[in-house]
Amino acid sequence: MRLSRYFLPTLKETPSEAQIVSHRLMLRAGLIRQEAAGIYAWLPLGLRVLKRIEQIVREEQERAGAVEILMPTIQLADLWRESGRYDAYGPEMLRIVDRHKRDMLYGPTAEEVVTDIFRGFVKSYRDLPLNLFNIQWKFRDEQRPRFGVMRGREFLMKDAYSFDVDEVGARKSYNRMFVAYLNTFSRLGLKAVPMRADTGPIGGDLSHEFIILADTGESQVFCDRRLVDMPAPGPDVDWNDLQSIVDQRTALYAATDEMHEADRFDAEVGEGDRLTARGIEVGHIFYFGTKYSKPMKAIVAGPDGKDVPVHMGSYGVGVSRLIGAIIEASHDDAGIIWPEAVAPFDVGIINLRPNDEAVSAACEDAWAKLKAAGKTVLYDDRDDRPGGKFATADLIGLPWQLIIGPKGVADGVVELKRRATGERETLPLDAALQKLTA
Amino acid sequence: MRLSRYFLPTLKETPSEAQIVSHRLMLRAGLIRQEAAGIYAWLPLGLRVLKRIEQIVREEQERAGAVEILMPTIQLADLWRESGRYDAYGPEMLRIVDRHKRDMLYGPTAEEVVTDIFRGFVKSYRDLPLNLFNIQWKFRDEQRPRFGVMRGREFLMKDAYSFDVDEVGARKSYNRMFVAYLNTFSRLGLKAVPMRADTGPIGGDLSHEFIILADTGESQVFCDRRLVDMPAPGPDVDWNDLQSIVDQRTALYAATDEMHEADRFDAEVGEGDRLTARGIEVGHIFYFGTKYSKPMKAIVAGPDGKDVPVHMGSYGVGVSRLIGAIIEASHDDAGIIWPEAVAPFDVGIINLRPNDEAVSAACEDAWAKLKAAGKTVLYDDRDDRPGGKFATADLIGLPWQLIIGPKGVADGVVELKRRATGERETLPLDAALQKLTA
Repeated sequence: MRLSRYFLPTLKETPSEAQIVSHRLMLRAGLIRQEAAGIYAWLPLGLRVLKRIEQIVREEQERAGAVEILMPTIQLADLWRESGRYDAYGPEMLRIVDRHKRDMLYGPTAEEVVTDIFRGFVKSYRDLPLNLFNIQWKFRDEQRPRFGVMRGREFLMKDAYSFDVDEVGARKSYNRMFVAYLNTFSRLGLKAVPMRADTGPIGGDLSHEFIILADTGESQVFCDRRLVDMPAPGPDVDWNDLQSIVDQRTALYAATDEMHEADRFDAEVGEGDRLTARGIEVGHIFYFGTKYSKPMKAIVAGPDGKDVPVHMGSYGVGVSRLIGAIIEASHDDAGIIWPEAVAPFDVGIINLRPNDEAVSAACEDAWAKLKAAGKTVLYDDRDDRPGGKFATADLIGLPWQLIIGPKGVADGVVELKRRATGERETLPLDAALQKLTA
Repeated sequence: MRLSRYFLPTLKETPSEAQIVSHRLMLRAGLIRQEAAGIYAWLPLGLRVLKRIEQIVREEQERAGAVEILMPTIQLADLWRESGRYDAYGPEMLRIVDRHKRDMLYGPTAEEVVTDIFRGFVKSYRDLPLNLFNIQWKFRDEQRPRFGVMRGREFLMKDAYSFDVDEVGARKSYNRMFVAYLNTFSRLGLKAVPMRADTGPIGGDLSHEFIILADTGESQVFCDRRLVDMPAPGPDVDWNDLQSIVDQRTALYAATDEMHEADRFDAEVGEGDRLTARGIEVGHIFYFGTKYSKPMKAIVAGPDGKDVPVHMGSYGVGVSRLIGAIIEASHDDAGIIWPEAVAPFDVGIINLRPNDEAVSAACEDAWAKLKAAGKTVLYDDRDDRPGGKFATADLIGLPWQLIIGPKGVADGVVELKRRATGERETLPLDAALQKLTA
């Protein structure tokens, strides 16, 4: 992409309304623009990151056997009356009346809708297990939206829902999502720790939050330090027997504030391993048995021919919030440092003198070669001073900067800078390309 | 994808509420499920088609130079008060009050939001032309939603918005979208005719609808027959000079009902070329000058340093409605016939005897080879009778069916059926694979 024809409205000043670094950097780097309290438009660069995260989340859901559907944003209030949650949900639910005076709402989550879809079609245990996931915009009318996309009102969520004939099956489904989440966050470059958590308005008796540690985290968390660096299981696990992987993690103490038991923490965790920190929730999984299937009559015929309500779980990832979380975990004073897996472009080419034909030709040549090697490129061809271009490149945080100017072109070299380390190297273009496409 | 682990809830009976064939087939083939009047959940097969269409639309927008953003679904009423449309829009606008008693709405379109984004950042003619597009869910609270996704309330729309310093520039932007639309619909396997159209609530003085002809079309259209088979310009046009391509089409008579002039039709079109038919609108483009930029003060400094309101156009494609339109244009008594470009899977493998090890091994082998060749496969491995499998395969309309049974495996052959023609051929597996991957 040629920057002169792109839309990258960066800001020089730090917006005063932004209290945390990810919010400030998302506004300054031209990723988002606030349209109303807690409601954002995604500008081109931000949208590219959002789509990459979405795709990684999708791939790991599919690997774990979940099937993608897409539920509407607007739901019938009557469905929520069936589950009993319509009155219980409180003012965070955005309630809507349509032109025919029907009560509707903007879905804050979709247990009711997916249970309705399930009961409309599935009648036998033979069609189970089933896990349906959905990546769709949700709305929660927060009292005080803040921290940018970290606590917005309109946000993108991946929500999956598992259906099993009994608790044994449901726990297997739970484990699959548990492991899928470990792999997802690892691919995103994050160290996420599963912690016992409160079930809140979703309900149920088994629940884990996936938390990344950051000073600006919204909640206090307590865990065994050894959990933080435990590597993700990876894709090549036995998906039909994940209990040992889950046990290995749940055996170590990790709890959010609401579930924390100070006595147990002290008794179970050696003093050197006790970690008390701030955390950001990036995923939350629930097993809630028949909480929705019973009142909503999501019933299948079991192996013995008798009808049973299905056992369900639900599994959320805050896709849009993850961008904020990633920036909280990966930035410096100059700007964002994107992990390669989610960077909006792989490489930024900086043309130091766009009016110089030889320099521009070298830039175009490098761009064409990177493109041919499957790399995405943002080419800064603007008629602007080098200092401004360097600042923009650091601010938007692409993993690599390829800097091409008249002196280098005369000497047959370019400069290659790695954003994460600040390391710079002067070398022939071909050698730089080899490094970038290795 | 293994059908036994997929979620494809087909219906045997024709749903009585569906009045047109595309709606009936979308319900029967398990593409969608109605959640409320005019509001649908997208089931796995339908979502795959939706995503393929979305991607083709995106690629052609980008080819024409438009840059993707994503605007929120919920908008501030105050923005619509600025443009004067808040009171004008009528009951089709879904109006919402949030917990702080602020007037909001679910966007039926986004001229106001995008103008607000534009004016927040762009200050000079040097940053123009600019075209920002967005593929997002919209809501129009139709009095009588019907025809499935063809006239739903919650629907997926691609909407692009162009910004130019003057009318000359704006007409160039209009032409780029005009040509992008011809190419988009052609890639989708549709013959879409641009027709002079009424501008409705968007406003402006230049507008074309892109219409495909179908007996079940919602409106009467009148055009020169020669427009229907005029080939699309394709990607290799001179994007900076498209006037002749546009002129070639607009020189021939084509108008929707509201814009039709019977005298002109008779005078300008030879009797043998006069076509009166029903049509389905799949795209609509507008040039409306300064209608929004003036009241909303979207102003840039022109080349002479003086401030001017920008000239704008907007360009819509009904992404979800296109699925209905494609089915209206491409089906038979047995079911859907997907054009290859949008088919949810390229090939369906039908295992005639899943309990036979040799047959299953041949199916798995074929699947692996197709996958290696980059083809997507839906493998019907269900323990079901051949008749039911054939009916499902025809109903869901994948372009190719690869039928593998015990007799064929013994003889070293498979059967290959082309859905569009019904043509069947018995041949060795390798020859079939060669045909499918040619």
